[in-house]
Amino acid sequence: MRIYLNDRFVDRQDAVVSVFDHGFLYGDGVYESLRAYGGKFLLLSQHLHRLARSADAIGLALPLTERDWPALLHDCLAHNRLADAMVRITVSRGPGDIGLDPALCPKPTLVITARPFRPYPEQLFDEGVSLAIVRTRRTANDAIPSHVKSLNFLNNILAKREASAAGAFDALMLNVDGHLTECTTSNLFFVEGNRLCTPSLDCGLLEGVTRGLVLSLACEQGLAVEEDRYPAARLAAAAECFLTNTSMEIMPVTTLDGAPVGTGRPGPLTQRLRRLFQDNVARFLG
Amino acid sequence: MRIYLNDRFVDRQDAVVSVFDHGFLYGDGVYESLRAYGGKFLLLSQHLHRLARSADAIGLALPLTERDWPALLHDCLAHNRLADAMVRITVSRGPGDIGLDPALCPKPTLVITARPFRPYPEQLFDEGVSLAIVRTRRTANDAIPSHVKSLNFLNNILAKREASAAGAFDALMLNVDGHLTECTTSNLFFVEGNRLCTPSLDCGLLEGVTRGLVLSLACEQGLAVEEDRYPAARLAAAAECFLTNTSMEIMPVTTLDGAPVGTGRPGPLTQRLRRLFQDNVARFLG
Repeated sequence: MRIYLNDRFVDRQDAVVSVFDHGFLYGDGVYESLRAYGGKFLLLSQHLHRLARSADAIGLALPLTERDWPALLHDCLAHNRLADAMVRITVSRGPGDIGLDPALCPKPTLVITARPFRPYPEQLFDEGVSLAIVRTRRTANDAIPSHVKSLNFLNNILAKREASAAGAFDALMLNVDGHLTECTTSNLFFVEGNRLCTPSLDCGLLEGVTRGLVLSLACEQGLAVEEDRYPAARLAAAAECFLTNTSMEIMPVTTLDGAPVGTGRPGPLTQRLRRLFQDNVARFLG
Repeated sequence: MRIYLNDRFVDRQDAVVSVFDHGFLYGDGVYESLRAYGGKFLLLSQHLHRLARSADAIGLALPLTERDWPALLHDCLAHNRLADAMVRITVSRGPGDIGLDPALCPKPTLVITARPFRPYPEQLFDEGVSLAIVRTRRTANDAIPSHVKSLNFLNNILAKREASAAGAFDALMLNVDGHLTECTTSNLFFVEGNRLCTPSLDCGLLEGVTRGLVLSLACEQGLAVEEDRYPAARLAAAAECFLTNTSMEIMPVTTLDGAPVGTGRPGPLTQRLRRLFQDNVARFLG
């Protein structure tokens, strides 16, 4: 495994940062996870745009311009001889003295890792996964803006631990008002009648790139789409439910807190959107 | 500078962690900052107790038992020839594959840094410091339990950036209900009449070790002490205000959002508590 560190490729054992890196001391930094299909990055500009927006929100100057990333990302694939891969860009505040002030860190740290894409077991897509609504509430928008994909993931980790303890695939997090937000690394959709519903961004959730594509595909198909604030009870009564993120694309949810969602099988609209998504990927790959 | 890393002392340039350390990827870890006076750690057992509580809350097994820390902490002073020092213990989840699940990380990372204690300029204690009430709200108790002193500090960093932009010494953060909580690395006290007031822990604030000592000292003196939920307006009308943390001990606050607090000078109760605190330290040192 060859990792890009600041300005060069290094072996895994040499891919290290100072214990004074504010990424390590404080989780002060941002990241993106991208997926390459056959050597091409899906939704590349959207990911790079979000990276820039995340960095801007915390006052972090990215070490590359938006124009320079694509070549470097492709280099990461080439150095690791990968075509189907997950690539993570991490930019931390960099090393500096102890203290919260970003001015202590003159130079950000850049890390890019690329690993083979490992698909989720097909069985999960066939049968759907289970969610547990957890006690841990999603960090509020006014504490850390939820459009920032930052290195502060303890909130989600605590939620994930609760889900694991409950034997669930993932945790579904509510915000402080008790509204649905998202899972620990994915966005949530559900179906009511023939309407596709997803929590609105003001509930405090990451604006997922895959979420955006799914919304576009649904609108193109003339489906009724709604973004709103939903209490948890709305989901318990939904006909279908699914998750979206870069690595899963669209994952059916068939169990919520131990009870079946809808018929307890992946729903027809979920399946249809999965096919649309895969067709879209196929078109992208030409 | 000699840094303790996992199981041995290393030079600063060798004090590095993997880019796959979940401390770096996710801020998944906890820490403590301790102050040594003349080679002795003040409130050592309280700090170690909080470290254990923090780790327990996130399901992290500390690499040392509470009994083994003191000798190692004194070694850190000795290796750096320090008597008056700030020592930071950091324990992260350790290196592991990408993913939120703590089970990916078999072995936590331990880092202990010791640096000379650099006192705040005496002028700050003589004149008091300024606070700005910022827009960034303190992360809620039910998102990350506030008694956990974790590596997730982006919330406080965003607040600190706002304070810096406003030209203030530090940021005062409200919770989502608009109640006073704390500053970015210190607890808040204020004086109303002859009553010493400090936000209650359920407002979502770190249970500061120095805060605890100040409350004890005040009670020993028979002072009226109150812990409660306070709207920001209560502070604007206070007679005195001060901050507490391990490195500042007690720091007078004389300006809030550009307006004087009380007379605009460090107040008599603040000065009295500072003397009591220093007497307490002197007794501790024998």
